Amino acid sequence: MNKKYRVGVDLGGTNIAVGVIDENYNIIGRGKLKTNVPRPAEEIMADIVKAVKMAVLDAGISLDEVESIGIGTPGNVNKEKGVIEYANNLYFNQVPAVELINKLVDAKVYLENDANCAALGEAIAGVGKGRKLFIAVTLGTGVGGGVILGGKILTGTKGAAGEIGHMTVEYDEEETCNCGTKGCLEQYASATGIVRLAKKQMVETSALAKIDNLTAKDVFDEAKAGDAYALQIVDRFARYLGVALGNVAQIIDPEAFVIGGGVARAGSIITESIEKYYNDSVMFALRGKQFNLAELGNDAGIYGAVRMVL
Amino acid sequence: MNKKYRVGVDLGGTNIAVGVIDENYNIIGRGKLKTNVPRPAEEIMADIVKAVKMAVLDAGISLDEVESIGIGTPGNVNKEKGVIEYANNLYFNQVPAVELINKLVDAKVYLENDANCAALGEAIAGVGKGRKLFIAVTLGTGVGGGVILGGKILTGTKGAAGEIGHMTVEYDEEETCNCGTKGCLEQYASATGIVRLAKKQMVETSALAKIDNLTAKDVFDEAKAGDAYALQIVDRFARYLGVALGNVAQIIDPEAFVIGGGVARAGSIITESIEKYYNDSVMFALRGKQFNLAELGNDAGIYGAVRMVL
Repeated sequence: MNKKYRVGVDLGGTNIAVGVIDENYNIIGRGKLKTNVPRPAEEIMADIVKAVKMAVLDAGISLDEVESIGIGTPGNVNKEKGVIEYANNLYFNQVPAVELINKLVDAKVYLENDANCAALGEAIAGVGKGRKLFIAVTLGTGVGGGVILGGKILTGTKGAAGEIGHMTVEYDEEETCNCGTKGCLEQYASATGIVRLAKKQMVETSALAKIDNLTAKDVFDEAKAGDAYALQIVDRFARYLGVALGNVAQIIDPEAFVIGGGVARAGSIITESIEKYYNDSVMFALRGKQFNLAELGNDAGIYGAVRMVL
Repeated sequence: MNKKYRVGVDLGGTNIAVGVIDENYNIIGRGKLKTNVPRPAEEIMADIVKAVKMAVLDAGISLDEVESIGIGTPGNVNKEKGVIEYANNLYFNQVPAVELINKLVDAKVYLENDANCAALGEAIAGVGKGRKLFIAVTLGTGVGGGVILGGKILTGTKGAAGEIGHMTVEYDEEETCNCGTKGCLEQYASATGIVRLAKKQMVETSALAKIDNLTAKDVFDEAKAGDAYALQIVDRFARYLGVALGNVAQIIDPEAFVIGGGVARAGSIITESIEKYYNDSVMFALRGKQFNLAELGNDAGIYGAVRMVL
């Protein structure tokens, strides 16, 4: 049978999202399941295959027609061995993902870091289209990043390049980040980090104090509504992120930054608040870079995961 | 006449150092003059040509045999226009260097950032030889950096990539850096930065308090001799630099770091003190990178400047 379809899997801390892509780069079928962490890696891998089968069914094709499955996963990936070395958000440690999936389905399976996939997705089909050198930042449960260089992901020596979320931005942090160190960008600029910041020194008169199960969205919504404390939290978020991206620019000098992930749905308040701190922190030659919101939303990861198998 | 020799110029805040390179990559002649800043760019360019002539004479060749002159300069370079856009240490602003030199000598003239040249020099002939992806840091009057990727310099969109010295490492700095922003790595990890740190809260009982015209070398010497205050300064230097290089690693994931420049002559105290803070600040996958002292010393800049014209 003609194996002409490719499948992209965006494996996240919350969802497993799958897309079947045709030869013209359209998503022609989708599948989605909850990740439900923590649970054994074998179960999650089995659910990836299940979600792939759902997407194949949705596309009206046969599993035999699938040439390859590209998986974007959080954490650190050993591509040669097909192993997810560790992924804190998934509670994974040395998971032989390719082997586990190949026990269940006969297709080429490839791994890549999820933030890299999102970056690559935006490079192929989204706001980064046509750009040669840009930085994609994903503000979700964690903070991911990807460096796109000459249209490709910079993976680095051990596949850990682009891990912007674990840049140290605060020397005085007392709480430990998921990665084991302290003061990482992710502790201030992820959805969880923003909530953590807000709860830490909550001002009782703030609208935020009255919200149960506070989310990052609440913080941005109340900031837009003019709540002084929410504005303060957004300002702290923006300072950490803006200066960190300034430091990225000092090293890479990219054409632009693309900001995606759930937090970025707050819209232009994100890019506008970052830009000020960014421009204040960088050398003259690096000022005035473009900050774009990602265009593809959740599909960026699927597109990027597919792309890597080309 | 057969133009078979290339010339590399390392233009620094203190010296203009020139080397003539033969086909086998040997330096066969040298010239050196003081830069003597501040003075008009035209004079400095004329002295570059003078130092080139000295090197040509030293090599026993003729100026007509020089095919190209590569110049490594501090600051930001527009290669297409042949302009040094600005270089704080040289008091340069929009200097049409290629044009000025070509008025005096008939050879192809190329510009590159000096730290990039030093990085490339180490990549070709020094400790970085054979490495594909590494970071070179130059601790001199300022702090320069270069990212070597696939054996080439990463220049970035506007030639400002690798400017590690102007990464923001301190939010609370009150003094302004040469670049116009505050809290740059250069303010703590350059020779001048180290002296500034030492003088700021000088402890009268320290051996450093007794030294006139304190230098960075004095600080490292007294630290090696066990002076408590000098050790404290070295520790602060190491923290800023170690965490900054950790942040570079989070983005690039290089094979190794190469530390050069005048400050690096202090030896292994530099790499050892940095490594601790580096390893404490990065993700697990990035720990244990090699920190090497540069091997070529002042010649790295000459080699790198020549290389870029190949």
